[in-house]
Amino acid sequence: MVVTLGELAVRLGCELRGDPLCEVDSVGTLADAQPRAVTFLAESRHRAALAQTRAAVVVLEARFAAECPVAALIAANPRATYARIATLLYPSPAAVPGVHPSALVAADAEVDATAQVGPLAVIGARSRVGAGAVIGPHCVIGADVSIAAEVRLVARVTLCDGVTVGARSLLHPGCVVGSDGFGIAAERGAWLKIPQVGSVRIGADVEIGANTTIDRGAIGDTVLADGVKLDNLIQIGHNVRIGAHTAIAGCTGVSGSTVIGERCQIGGACAIGGHLLITDDVHITGFSMISHSIPKPGVYSSGIPFEEARTWRRMVARFKRLARSAAQQNGDESKDE
Amino acid sequence: MVVTLGELAVRLGCELRGDPLCEVDSVGTLADAQPRAVTFLAESRHRAALAQTRAAVVVLEARFAAECPVAALIAANPRATYARIATLLYPSPAAVPGVHPSALVAADAEVDATAQVGPLAVIGARSRVGAGAVIGPHCVIGADVSIAAEVRLVARVTLCDGVTVGARSLLHPGCVVGSDGFGIAAERGAWLKIPQVGSVRIGADVEIGANTTIDRGAIGDTVLADGVKLDNLIQIGHNVRIGAHTAIAGCTGVSGSTVIGERCQIGGACAIGGHLLITDDVHITGFSMISHSIPKPGVYSSGIPFEEARTWRRMVARFKRLARSAAQQNGDESKDE
Amino acid sequence: MVVTLGELAVRLGCELRGDPLCEVDSVGTLADAQPRAVTFLAESRHRAALAQTRAAVVVLEARFAAECPVAALIAANPRATYARIATLLYPSPAAVPGVHPSALVAADAEVDATAQVGPLAVIGARSRVGAGAVIGPHCVIGADVSIAAEVRLVARVTLCDGVTVGARSLLHPGCVVGSDGFGIAAERGAWLKIPQVGSVRIGADVEIGANTTIDRGAIGDTVLADGVKLDNLIQIGHNVRIGAHTAIAGCTGVSGSTVIGERCQIGGACAIGGHLLITDDVHITGFSMISHSIPKPGVYSSGIPFEEARTWRRMVARFKRLARSAAQQNGDESKDE
Repeated sequence: MVVTLGELAVRLGCELRGDPLCEVDSVGTLADAQPRAVTFLAESRHRAALAQTRAAVVVLEARFAAECPVAALIAANPRATYARIATLLYPSPAAVPGVHPSALVAADAEVDATAQVGPLAVIGARSRVGAGAVIGPHCVIGADVSIAAEVRLVARVTLCDGVTVGARSLLHPGCVVGSDGFGIAAERGAWLKIPQVGSVRIGADVEIGANTTIDRGAIGDTVLADGVKLDNLIQIGHNVRIGAHTAIAGCTGVSGSTVIGERCQIGGACAIGGHLLITDDVHITGFSMISHSIPKPGVYSSGIPFEEARTWRRMVARFKRLARSAAQQNGDESKDE
Repeated sequence: MVVTLGELAVRLGCELRGDPLCEVDSVGTLADAQPRAVTFLAESRHRAALAQTRAAVVVLEARFAAECPVAALIAANPRATYARIATLLYPSPAAVPGVHPSALVAADAEVDATAQVGPLAVIGARSRVGAGAVIGPHCVIGADVSIAAEVRLVARVTLCDGVTVGARSLLHPGCVVGSDGFGIAAERGAWLKIPQVGSVRIGADVEIGANTTIDRGAIGDTVLADGVKLDNLIQIGHNVRIGAHTAIAGCTGVSGSTVIGERCQIGGACAIGGHLLITDDVHITGFSMISHSIPKPGVYSSGIPFEEARTWRRMVARFKRLARSAAQQNGDESKDE
Repeated sequence: MVVTLGELAVRLGCELRGDPLCEVDSVGTLADAQPRAVTFLAESRHRAALAQTRAAVVVLEARFAAECPVAALIAANPRATYARIATLLYPSPAAVPGVHPSALVAADAEVDATAQVGPLAVIGARSRVGAGAVIGPHCVIGADVSIAAEVRLVARVTLCDGVTVGARSLLHPGCVVGSDGFGIAAERGAWLKIPQVGSVRIGADVEIGANTTIDRGAIGDTVLADGVKLDNLIQIGHNVRIGAHTAIAGCTGVSGSTVIGERCQIGGACAIGGHLLITDDVHITGFSMISHSIPKPGVYSSGIPFEEARTWRRMVARFKRLARSAAQQNGDESKDE
């Protein structure tokens, strides 16, 4: 798609410094952008690259405009403005209405006439697919599933029985929504399965990454509120509730029944325990262990940055020796036991 | 399904305090249960909710019965008794015998007449599917696979060539059993692949979570004994052996050739090294690093709970400084090197 | 396949100590090998098993030959020599040329006449499949994908639009290549999606494990160079570049825009931050947190081995108290803030 800088300035409500008739058709990085590309400067650490850019236009804050060697679109939030421009230049392909002849749709499922159902998709009994939704190839939709308007299941998405997905949500390949939670009861050295009779409710504008898994509730539902963004290979346990606009990076696991507030940002590879309450606006840095509730907004951590292995082994040995001897001296059986 | 409290008491061998003719048809939590629902009290920390419950009946220990405002089923192990009741109220749908016309079953595969093979499943040469087994939609079964009676592959399960699955095991969507182990040999700065010629043997009553991966053995088999329960997004390396009734929570990885005993409980997001021996009845708390063998039953940990990021950064800096200076003072090149 | 020890010695350029006419047809471990099997001794800690082996032949270093009770093939690198022998005895099945009638191949896709396309695979517009490639059952190949000669997609592999895969690469079930990166921009308490317009380029002789996910670039491509080996359940973020012959073990995550050098070895369950530069020949031990760049080859760690939980809790409490009090005494607001 081709658009002029003047059009961009008008659509996005930005000040343009440069030729309004100049056309752009793509995006690029500050370093690699081609002459018809849009790029952006969102962090001052990338400022050095600004002087060298050959992009058509750079989206940036006013304070950097004087340093920009090409046209500039002035924005208070350059990353967000860039996101809007890129969405304009690279629109998601619209649904091509119709059900592929190889798809298997239950007789009593309701697929909106404007929805697209791809090759070899399977849609179960009584499920509904809303207007403009796209069900990609090889998706498996169980029974009684509700898929709202303009949802996009890219490919090979599994939605188990009874799952609901809100409008415009985007689910990436391999994710599984509504598999059984890990509910087992010990009895005489073996395990009994506890039936998982809840389901999963996903709000509007949610994104779920590739091969991420979201378990159905044991009793009651697992819930992702509007605007939740989950990266790849995340595990969400049964009956977890995640508040609106919370984002979680890849490889993090959230154990069952934990409630996470709104607008939280959780880094990758975190381990979040079960039955916790994490309030709104909590940031957790990557590789942290969250073993108790967080009642106060703020930034939390527990990962230890690496050292050379030789140094690290000594540090760990020293740490263990210190902690051991101190504990012995003090008869240190304090509150932590 | 509807059942009376009297029937439940008889079937489960529990004392009932309440009206034996009262009917129940569902389950709920102490807080949310509807008037025809069964709920349970398994941990005393949920005791406060007991007084408010509107459930038809609560499964609980005798010591809490006096506090129960509704009917009570007295059980020594309320969670297990609840599991049995929920299984009664929400039975797994029985197999609907037959092969879906869109499934592709090799001419020399043997599918029991009472088994169900779902839409678009693929079953390879010489594989066998036992009585009452359910092969869900989009499952891919390789050659020479053996699936015992009443196994349930929910959907989109991959069983590679030669895998065996014991009776009544339950495999969730996206899990992959029998993919190649990570076997490579370094040679002149590059890697040679080591063929993985073993397979995977899964016992009876095993559960495997969504998107969990279990590698085939390099030489000899990877083995999950009867009653093993694996959550989602777990990685089991080649030639691992897991003893009967061991349960592992999500996001944990077990490296190759490690042997884990019976009745172990391993938390989520643990990293378990290769070639280790972990004895029976070991509990490992979540986010632990298991880098050497565990010869003694017990509870083991290595995760550090989080702090506010500001505090945490100081702690880490202080820890590293202490460990460094102590090491220098003592010429601390002791056994840890 | 059956081969004589004499043939093996000639093909592999090894000295044989034993009967050149002796036939072998399989592999085994030192402990379990059958009389017609090849085994190997790669680590001296397995030396005790050597004396008891009943294998036909052991591949080992010259220094251990005197202890070998059966025939010996002398090799400088026994593991690599074993890998070659096992590859000879257990060859990958060659492609069976042709497209399965249930596969759906776009009219303008180009599938080489010698390639194999399995049941229910989907191949999108303008995609190309090279000579001798095998596209296993249930693979989903998007549009404009390029698959080089002799690539093998075992089963249920997803390659999104525009992905390229180099010759002889091997992709295991459930892996997803080219899903959207986790690109979002905060705006007034919600998130805007940043279109991910790059793709993924995979070199030759790459191996990608089961359920591993590799995101497409935000702008520009995510790149895996020749000979990269990835285990299962790994997450590779957008615009990551991994140098030739680097190997990464399972459950590790690499955040966006990080560049990893050549011949690195990265353990399992590591958390590698974004926008880092890790030079060539870096080894990272398992369960490490890599939060800044590594400019120097070497071995790096940050995991802490477990203790009994009781001991561990005391250590952590002591560590936190020490770090807190020391920080207070020293007004310790030093460089780490």
